[in-house]
Amino acid sequence: MFVTFEGGDGSGKTTQATLLAERLRREGEEVVLTREPGGTELGERIRELLLHAGHVAPWAEAALFAASRAQHVDEVIRPALERGAVVVCDRYLDSSLAYQGIARGLGLEAVLELNLSAVGGLLPDRTFLLVIDPGESRSRLGGAPDRIEREDDRFRVLVDEAYRELARRFPGRIVPLDARREPTAIAEEVYERLRSGP
Amino acid sequence: MFVTFEGGDGSGKTTQATLLAERLRREGEEVVLTREPGGTELGERIRELLLHAGHVAPWAEAALFAASRAQHVDEVIRPALERGAVVVCDRYLDSSLAYQGIARGLGLEAVLELNLSAVGGLLPDRTFLLVIDPGESRSRLGGAPDRIEREDDRFRVLVDEAYRELARRFPGRIVPLDARREPTAIAEEVYERLRSGP
Repeated sequence: MFVTFEGGDGSGKTTQATLLAERLRREGEEVVLTREPGGTELGERIRELLLHAGHVAPWAEAALFAASRAQHVDEVIRPALERGAVVVCDRYLDSSLAYQGIARGLGLEAVLELNLSAVGGLLPDRTFLLVIDPGESRSRLGGAPDRIEREDDRFRVLVDEAYRELARRFPGRIVPLDARREPTAIAEEVYERLRSGP
Repeated sequence: MFVTFEGGDGSGKTTQATLLAERLRREGEEVVLTREPGGTELGERIRELLLHAGHVAPWAEAALFAASRAQHVDEVIRPALERGAVVVCDRYLDSSLAYQGIARGLGLEAVLELNLSAVGGLLPDRTFLLVIDPGESRSRLGGAPDRIEREDDRFRVLVDEAYRELARRFPGRIVPLDARREPTAIAEEVYERLRSGP
């Protein structure tokens, strides 16, 4: 079983991925908990390029994320699934669809095609989308936003809309969850949704 | 005008690209002579990853080449074409089609799609394919080939076949040339083919 968590920064993905992995381990499952970008040595080096390089062309960015993902699937995810482990991944290909495909405007279909090639068609069995209203997250900033905060704000709204579009596009796989609740309540819903099937 | 040179290692691409650039410059054209992989700072860093990383998954390799190419087009090739310069490039997307798409078996269509996305659909106006019989290049090795030489040999044959397939697939764009002749004779044919149009 391959489970991913998606959502904007601060939506609680890492917490939920960790809580799910712990619970499944207590039940005796082998669980591989991993994250993107990164997850492999090559992936970490690509991540450095993405963070430290100067100007990166939008399609270069998309292809670098896809390269990191290809390596992650090849080295970590697919071997784990093949030996029967549960893989829980904090961000996966929907992040590229939302950020590069929709929010940066490269096109959902083109970025999906690129990523499906890169991962040999491997989609998660279930993707939990942690939804926080971007206006609410904005209100927590306080004071007058500076240029960067305003820029981040606009982009946060775009990413939020992009994720909602993905949830409509893949209704069988992506489960949107209200992320404003207590982490334990969300974790309980994640667990129930997984156990009850689609 | 955007002109690329393709072919296996040692086929004389760099020599021909340089001779063409020099001749066009003597005629007063602005010529940008460049090469792949590389051609930009990000591209050079990606090239290092490709050369020095340990195991690289085949699709990770293809996506890294595409990322480098996206940056190259964005920073160097498209700006040069837009100001009216002639761009002469030593290897471009056909190298990925031949090496990763066909010889490594990722699929011509999938690698073409990835690369067309990465470069915003920018294909060369003319691609000169320098053809050397791989058996002939093999015979120059001399003695009994070791494991690596045999491996390289098989791969060289695959790449040669891949390039021939591309020439059949894109007959209007790719011009195969017999690369066994004198460099100046080949350069003359390149120049005539360019001047006489398709």
